[in-house]
Amino acid sequence: MAQITEEVTQQLKTSIPDHWDVPSSLLESMQYSLMAGGKRLRPLLVIAAAEALGGSRAAALPVACAVEMVHTYSLIHDDLPAMDNDDYRRGKLTNHKVYGEATAIMAGDALLTHAFYSVVQAARLHSVPADAVLSIVEDLSVMAGARGMVGGQMADMEGEQGVTGLEQLQYIHLHKTGDLIVFSLVAGGRAAGGEPAQLEALERFGRDLGLAFQIQDDILDLIGDEQKLGKKTQSDVEQQKVTYPYFLGMERSLEEVERLTASAKGALASANIPDPSRLLEIADFLMKRDH
Amino acid sequence: MAQITEEVTQQLKTSIPDHWDVPSSLLESMQYSLMAGGKRLRPLLVIAAAEALGGSRAAALPVACAVEMVHTYSLIHDDLPAMDNDDYRRGKLTNHKVYGEATAIMAGDALLTHAFYSVVQAARLHSVPADAVLSIVEDLSVMAGARGMVGGQMADMEGEQGVTGLEQLQYIHLHKTGDLIVFSLVAGGRAAGGEPAQLEALERFGRDLGLAFQIQDDILDLIGDEQKLGKKTQSDVEQQKVTYPYFLGMERSLEEVERLTASAKGALASANIPDPSRLLEIADFLMKRDH
Repeated sequence: MAQITEEVTQQLKTSIPDHWDVPSSLLESMQYSLMAGGKRLRPLLVIAAAEALGGSRAAALPVACAVEMVHTYSLIHDDLPAMDNDDYRRGKLTNHKVYGEATAIMAGDALLTHAFYSVVQAARLHSVPADAVLSIVEDLSVMAGARGMVGGQMADMEGEQGVTGLEQLQYIHLHKTGDLIVFSLVAGGRAAGGEPAQLEALERFGRDLGLAFQIQDDILDLIGDEQKLGKKTQSDVEQQKVTYPYFLGMERSLEEVERLTASAKGALASANIPDPSRLLEIADFLMKRDH
Repeated sequence: MAQITEEVTQQLKTSIPDHWDVPSSLLESMQYSLMAGGKRLRPLLVIAAAEALGGSRAAALPVACAVEMVHTYSLIHDDLPAMDNDDYRRGKLTNHKVYGEATAIMAGDALLTHAFYSVVQAARLHSVPADAVLSIVEDLSVMAGARGMVGGQMADMEGEQGVTGLEQLQYIHLHKTGDLIVFSLVAGGRAAGGEPAQLEALERFGRDLGLAFQIQDDILDLIGDEQKLGKKTQSDVEQQKVTYPYFLGMERSLEEVERLTASAKGALASANIPDPSRLLEIADFLMKRDH
C-alpha cells in the first residue's frame, strides 16, 4: 500500500507542473496543499477497487488523483477563517495562513476544477471508454456537490451551531465524508470496466466503510493520541459537536465500527469480485488505525 | 435573443430544484445568485454557436446552464471580503451579505461542481455523443481552472496591488473573461457535432469577441452611466487598476473594440458556418452596448 501511496503522490506532483503559465502564488498554493501529506486514503480506494476487478493501475491513477484534488480543495476551504478557522493541518500551516485567504479560496477552486480534467485523462491517456469516464464525471459532480460533500459540510457547520440531532448527524456522516469514499470505490470499479453488480457491491462496501471511518474519527477525537493524530483531540467536545459516541456511548460506538467493517467486507462477497484482498486489508487497517 | 435568455433562466431554475435533500440555506444561496439576473451572455453564446451549426437548442441548453453556473460561482467568490469585498452586484446584495461568508464559499463550490453535472446531461438527456461531451468537460476544466479563469482572476488581484504591465493586462483579459467566452462558443459547437474547422472558427470568434468585450467593460467603467450599468463607475481608477484605456487612451480603445469585433465576424467567414447570423448580431450588440 505504501508503494501505491508513493505512486499517487508522484502522479499528483506531475499533475500540476511548475511550467504552467499561471501566477506563481496560485500554482505554489495548489501544490503546497496537494503535497502536504495525508493518508491518500481515497486514491488508495480507487486503485484497490480497480485492481480488485482486474483493472490496470495506470488507468485508475488519474481518477485517484482527481479524488485527492477534491479532498484537498475541501480541506483548504474548510480551514478558512469563515469556516473552521484552522491554523494548522497535519502539523503544517493551513493554506490561507501561508498564502492568504484570497489565494486559498482560488487554489481550492482551481483544484476542484482540475479534478475533472484529471478524470478525463483516464480516457485520453489510458483508453478507458468515454461512456465510463462520463459516468465518473457525473458521479463526482453529484458526490462532491450540494447533494454530496458540500451539503454534508454545510450541515456540519450548522451542527456546530448546536442544532444537531441524530438524523442530522447521519446526514453529515453520509455526505461529508461518506460520499467521496463511495465515489472512490465506484469510480475505481468504473475505470476497470466493472459490471453493475460489481459496482453495487463496491458502493455498499464504501457506504459501510465510510461510516465506520467517520465513527472511528469521532472515537479518536475523544481517546486518540495527539502526537499520532497530528492534531488536537477533544475538538468535537470543545466545539460542542454532537458525535456518534455522544449518542451511543464509547462501547457501542466501538462495536458499531466493528459491525460496519464486517458488513463492508460482507458486501464484497455478494458479487463476483476477482481479487478483493486489498480492499479487505484496507477495511481492517482502518478499523485498527490509531491516527 | 430575449426568448433564449428566458429559456436559459427557466432551465437554470429547474436545475437546482427545491426538493433536493440539501440544507436549505445552501440551496437558497445557490438559487439566489443563479437567479440574480445578469445578461446571460455566455449561455446565449453557447446556444447561438450550436444553432449556427444547425444543432438543437435542447442539446445545447445543459451546456449553456453549466457555463452560467461557473460564471455565477466566480462572481460569488470574487465578491467575498477576502477578494473584492463587494456588497452589491447587479443592484442586489452579494451572496455573502445575505447568507454569510461560509455559505457563500460553499454555494460557489457547489455551483462549480454542479456545472459539470449539467454538462453531462447533454449526453444523458439529449444524446450528444459521449466523446463530444467529454471534450466539453475537458475544455471547461481547463478554461475555468488555474490555466484559465481562476489564473486570470489571480493575476487581476495581483494587478490591484499595483504590479500590472501591458503583458499582465493581456494575461488577465485573455483568461479572466476571455477563456469562458471562448469555451462557450466551442462548447456550443461541440454540442452540435461541429467539425474541427468550425470549432476553430468559433474559437477565433470567441477570442476576439472576449477581448472586445473586456475593453468595452473598461471603457464603460470610465464613461458609462451608473444607472444603466447597475454599478458604480470609475472603480478601476479608484482601485488603481491598469486598463486598456490607460495604456491606449480612450480613442484607440474604442477603435480597438471596433477592430476586434470586425475581426471576430471575419473569423466566422473563414469556415463553413451554415447560419452565423445570430453570432454576428451578438457581436454588434456587444460593441454598441452601454451596460
